[in-house]
Order: sequence, then structure tokens, then C-alpha cells
Amino acid sequence: MGLIVQKFGGTSVADAEKIHLASRRAIAARERGNRVVVVVSAMGDTTDDLVDLADQVCTWRGTKYNPPKREMDQLLATGEQVTIALMAMAIHAQGCEAISFTGGQIGLVTDNAFSKARIQSINHQRIINELDSGKIVIVAGFQGVTPDGDLTTLGRGGSNATLVALGAVLHADVCENYTDVDGIYTADPRIVKNARKIDRISYDEMLELSGLGASVLQTRAVEFAKKYNVPIEVRNSQNDNPGTWIVSETQNMEHIVVSGVALKKELIRVTIKSVPDQPGIAATIFSTIAAGNIVVDDIIQNVMDDNTANISFTVEHGDLADIKPVVEKLTKVLGGRMQAIYQADLAKVSAVGVGMRTHTGVAQRMFKALADAKVNIQNITTSEIKISCIISKEDGPRALQAVHDVFELEKAK
Amino acid sequence: MGLIVQKFGGTSVADAEKIHLASRRAIAARERGNRVVVVVSAMGDTTDDLVDLADQVCTWRGTKYNPPKREMDQLLATGEQVTIALMAMAIHAQGCEAISFTGGQIGLVTDNAFSKARIQSINHQRIINELDSGKIVIVAGFQGVTPDGDLTTLGRGGSNATLVALGAVLHADVCENYTDVDGIYTADPRIVKNARKIDRISYDEMLELSGLGASVLQTRAVEFAKKYNVPIEVRNSQNDNPGTWIVSETQNMEHIVVSGVALKKELIRVTIKSVPDQPGIAATIFSTIAAGNIVVDDIIQNVMDDNTANISFTVEHGDLADIKPVVEKLTKVLGGRMQAIYQADLAKVSAVGVGMRTHTGVAQRMFKALADAKVNIQNITTSEIKISCIISKEDGPRALQAVHDVFELEKAK
Repeated sequence: MGLIVQKFGGTSVADAEKIHLASRRAIAARERGNRVVVVVSAMGDTTDDLVDLADQVCTWRGTKYNPPKREMDQLLATGEQVTIALMAMAIHAQGCEAISFTGGQIGLVTDNAFSKARIQSINHQRIINELDSGKIVIVAGFQGVTPDGDLTTLGRGGSNATLVALGAVLHADVCENYTDVDGIYTADPRIVKNARKIDRISYDEMLELSGLGASVLQTRAVEFAKKYNVPIEVRNSQNDNPGTWIVSETQNMEHIVVSGVALKKELIRVTIKSVPDQPGIAATIFSTIAAGNIVVDDIIQNVMDDNTANISFTVEHGDLADIKPVVEKLTKVLGGRMQAIYQADLAKVSAVGVGMRTHTGVAQRMFKALADAKVNIQNITTSEIKISCIISKEDGPRALQAVHDVFELEKAK
Repeated sequence: MGLIVQKFGGTSVADAEKIHLASRRAIAARERGNRVVVVVSAMGDTTDDLVDLADQVCTWRGTKYNPPKREMDQLLATGEQVTIALMAMAIHAQGCEAISFTGGQIGLVTDNAFSKARIQSINHQRIINELDSGKIVIVAGFQGVTPDGDLTTLGRGGSNATLVALGAVLHADVCENYTDVDGIYTADPRIVKNARKIDRISYDEMLELSGLGASVLQTRAVEFAKKYNVPIEVRNSQNDNPGTWIVSETQNMEHIVVSGVALKKELIRVTIKSVPDQPGIAATIFSTIAAGNIVVDDIIQNVMDDNTANISFTVEHGDLADIKPVVEKLTKVLGGRMQAIYQADLAKVSAVGVGMRTHTGVAQRMFKALADAKVNIQNITTSEIKISCIISKEDGPRALQAVHDVFELEKAK
């Protein structure tokens, strides 16, 4: 008996049959005596279809214009609104009471950063009232309203942000995140065939893995869950297998040296050579890049003999078109002999685990495993609970398997 | 220079190309110096598609359940929300500024009669502010919110109700109603080939014609326009022909005896025989029927020699399944020798015109025309500005043509 917030992603509500399946889960949790809140995403390809419509109307006399972001959010927010209504109807048809709410209807107020708004507050009284009257409450994920009543969307992974925010304000016992996989794996099972589902993982480890491309749960949602100590269970909507619990770190987690490994494919390393070695110049470079909304990682700076520095960092392959003009502009503005080199076809293999804090020799084992697999390491970056190696793209899958093997992740701990 | 409210129905915004066409009209009106508000319906078949989705999720283990009306409105309101966002984007792509609003965002408050809500108030300040800043304002038709923030829809013709309500609160110079026909015709042009487009028609005449099945403009919208004296122009979105103006009655309108004729096909006459001739019994019968949400018309009561009465009325063919159980129940409750007779395959031909008030002999001309066309009249009902004859269904088109001919409606007045 408790309060459960369940979230069903787009593939789990893609058609009437799947909506019925999701409804059964909500009803089953209700029948076990829980109070149940359900967060849903837009059905299947709905968002893509809406974006396609927007592309069509934004093309005028052969030129494609960017849609105003406010209007794009007004458009996209309809996707989840369709699902909440259908979900409430499906639950009703199955003999249980339900009521649906848009983000605005539960006072989910955000800032006005359209397309990537941040949640500021939730007026959860109406949810509590409906739960008290015995209803299952269905909430539209991914959306909110500004204080002026304009609709906003929360960006990539926004429905998970809604899930965790509701879990926090309602003091939920668990947030169940239903997806199309059984949970979080020690590695991507499409690459590492003997990858194992993880039973429990800490927020910090999940944060590192999310940042490294484990797309099940986005960084923002995990940060929020950590801040408010909301347990998340990632589960498969198609079966009843137990999933992966993402929880606060416990003492015995440190026995596990490495919890999971990850591979980021398709990276590009940008190296800016002959940067004047002056205070503040790195700040100028990276704030200019950040202003272009480009995410950089794996920053390395080496000071040379001639009083200049080489600064390198990686960006995702898809950001190449965006980063190039920014870097060209920077080399012009900062002057001197600066020049930029772009190295494509890179990848990054990483090992993550809170046990690294207390165990020594982890990096050496990883480097040796890569060497044995004849993988050349080009750069190394580390955090307290993560070791990452930049390698060539073609070595990626082999490297991931080698690191997975050396830490024996296929064995249950 | 003035304030224009334009409304585009579903067929006029059915795809990106049509949305661009509609946008051009709004921009053209803006460029002529007007302040422009645009009301839009859901695109083409969107509403049907949503209803179909609802049917699917409301079917559980072979039984179809009725969706909760609140959830149905939550679902259907997304249709117009998609169109307003796309319309604002299209106008933006064409170089003009626009902003979209849902019903809720302009405080269009209704009662909580889901699926057929009535507008109670509109907070038009935000619209005024955006018009003042030079923007074209796009408003979702057909929808509003209850004081609690639940979404409602306004029922059949709801977008026209939004059009006229906005016209009233904004003191618009004209409400332009864009459809797929050139305006209001003297008769349905699909039946009467020489039907003529009417240039000007009074609210009262339009009300009668709407009630008789001229589906371009619904009764509620016309009532509202009459109450607030808002001129409506019905126009074709596919061409630049002048349309039909629906306006207050003017003195010279009375020169035209008959403005238009209409045919209602597929009527059923229900006759209840041997009704005890007691005060209040008709009220009991018709309030019971009204409680079943069935619209009746052409009520005739004849008192018989035996102190009973025969009461007859017509309903649309589609209401037969609903009316039968209600009448069976009534005959049981009221007892006596009452029995019901159903006569199908009827139609009604009507002539409408404010000139009837001051001209005599109109009914006779109509009856003679029908007699000459060998059309047998079964019932006659009249109002101050309308004459209706119940006839057999197969005579319908011939009767309509005959009445159109006798009043020479094909000739411009």
C-alpha cells in the first residue's frame, strides 16, 4: 500500500491495444491497494508526425523557416493530451475510475524556455483530491505552462522529468518507468551479447551512464530523483520481469567495482592549437561554444613550450555543422596563430562504478584489457566513479566487450 | 480599417497548402490595415480520427463503452490546438507576426456541459494586447474551459459560436465565415440547379433556414450574432467571390417575400392517438422526449369527439431508434387506449422570408405550386416568416424546385 507513479513511454502507448495493456498495469497497482498516478508520453510516432506537419507549413516558396518555439510547443503538447484522454477512457472501459490532466491543469509551471523548459512548481492538490476520491490520475508528461499560461515542453526525456517531479511532490514510494527494455544493462545488449540486467544502481552511476549515452533515463530526471531521493524502477511494459532500481547509494554498493560499461559512437575531437596561454581564455572558448547550445566533453588542455596551449574536446558527430562556424569565429576573434583540427571517426568506451572510489588498480585493468584487445587509446578522462578512453570508432564494439569481460560484468554480483 | 474576425472550417485548413491559403487571407486583411483575429477548426478528418481512436480504447472484451464526456472533450480539443499552432507558423513563414491561443488561454469560460458547453465569458484583454502589438491572433474554435480549468467543447457548429462570440466581445466590424461554398443559396444548389446566391439575409431568416437544415451556419451562432448585432459574411475560402451577408433586418428586406426555400429529407412522423385530453399532458409528453435529447418539430394536436386528442410531431430519421422506447414508455405510464403510429419516408419543404409579414397570399401561392407539381401536402405548419409542408420523401426534390420556381428565386431581387 503506497503511492506509485507509473510512466509509459511512446512505444508503450502506441495503439489501442498497448494503451489497454498499460491501463491493466495501472488498475492492477490500484487493486493492490495503492494510490496510482500515471504519466504518459505521446503515442508512437505522433511527435514525428507533428514535426513533419510543422515542416510543411514552415516551408514557403521553397524556403524552410524555423517555427516560433512557442508555437512548436503549442503543437507538440497535443500529443500527450491525446494519450491522457485515451488512457482515462481505457481505464474507464475496464471498470475503474480515472481522470486525465494536462500539465497546465495540475499547475505544472515552468520557466518560459520553450522546447526545453524547466519545471518550477507543481500544484499537486488537485491530484491529491482525485486520488482521495479513489481515481487513477493520468498526467500528460513532457509539458507544462508558463506563469502566463503559455504551453511549454520539457525537451528530450521530458516525460521522465514529469515522472520524477510528480514522484517528488507526491512523496511517491516508487516511480515505475515502463519502457521497451527490461531495465538498465551492464552494457548495450545489442553490442555485448552477455550483458546482464542490473538489479540496483546508484543515482550517481546512473548519471554517468546517462551522460554516456544510456538513453533509457536522461540525466535531468536522474538528477532530480537524486535531489529528492525518489526511487525509480525501470521496467519492461511487455512483461512482468523485475526491473532495475535506481536508488541512493548504499554501503554495500561499493563492493561492486564497476557497475556498467558504455560506448559512445561517432564522436569528433576538435583540437585548437596555439591558443595564447592567458587566464580566462578557456572560459571564453567554452562559453562561446555553450552559447551555441553545443555539448562538449572530454576537455584536455596541454601547455606547450612556446607559451601557447592546445585545447581539445569531443563533440557528437551530429554537432559538427554547428561547431565549425563557432570555432572559426573564435580563432578569428582570439587571433594569433590559432588553428583548429577536426578528427572524426572516434568513439569513447567508459567504465562506471562507485566502487572505484575505494578500489585501486581499476584504470590499469581497463587499459590492459584494451591493450590486449589491440585497441589504441587516444585520450583518457576520468571522474571519481568513471574512466573514459577515446578510441577509434572501428574499435568501439571490440573495446566495449573487452572492458565488459575484464570486470566480469556478466556474472551476478 | 477595422477589426475582422475570420473563421476557417476543417476543409479550409485540411492540409499545409490550404493552411497557407487561409494564412494569405489573414495577412491580406492585415495588410489592408485591419486588425485580424482568426478562428480555426480541426484539420479535415482529424476529429473523425480522434473519435475512431476513442472507439477503439472504449471497446473492452467485445463490449463498447461510452467514453466519459470530460475525457472526450479533453481528446477532441487537441484538434483545434494543432491547427492554431500550424496556422501561426504558416503566417510566420510568410513574414508576418502571429500568436496562437487555445480557448483556455483567452479565458473562454463555459459551463461544464461537456460536449455541448455554452460560452459564459471571454477575457479578451490578451487578444487586444497582441492585436495592439501588430500580431495576427489565432484562436482555437469549438473549445473552452470550465471555471475549474477542465476543457470543454461547444458541440456541433462550435467554431462558429467561437467566431461570433469573439466578434461580439471585440466589437468586430465583420465576422468572415470561410467555407467551401460561395454563400447562402435560395435553395440547395445540389437539388435546385438554378438556385441563386443570396447577397443579404436577415438573422431571423437565417435562423429559420438553419433550423431547416441549411448547414453552413448553425442556429446558435446566428442567435448569438443577432443578439449582439454582429454582421457575418459567409464566403468561399477557394475564391474571391463576394459572399452572403447575414445582418439585422432592414426595411427594404420586406420587399422580398421569400428569401429562400429549404428541404428536410428523411423525416418520420410520430402520431400518438387517444391521448387523454387533460391539461398538462402535452407538457408531460414533450418534456419526457426532450429529456431523451431528441429534437421534435411540426407539432400538431387535434382534439377528437371522444374527449381524447391525437398528437403528432416529426423527428429526423436518425432519431427513430431513440424515440421509440421513449414513446412506448409514455404510452405505458399515461395509460388509457393510447397508441403510437410511425410514418416514415416523409420530407418537409419550407419557404422563408421576412416579407411574409407584410405580404398576403404567400401560402396560397405555395400550395398551388405544390398542387400543380402533383405533390400531396400531409401537414402544414407556419411561423411569422415561414411556411412548411410535410410531404412524402419521394416528392421532395420536385416540391423544392416547384416552390423555388413559383417565387422566382432564381432572379436577382
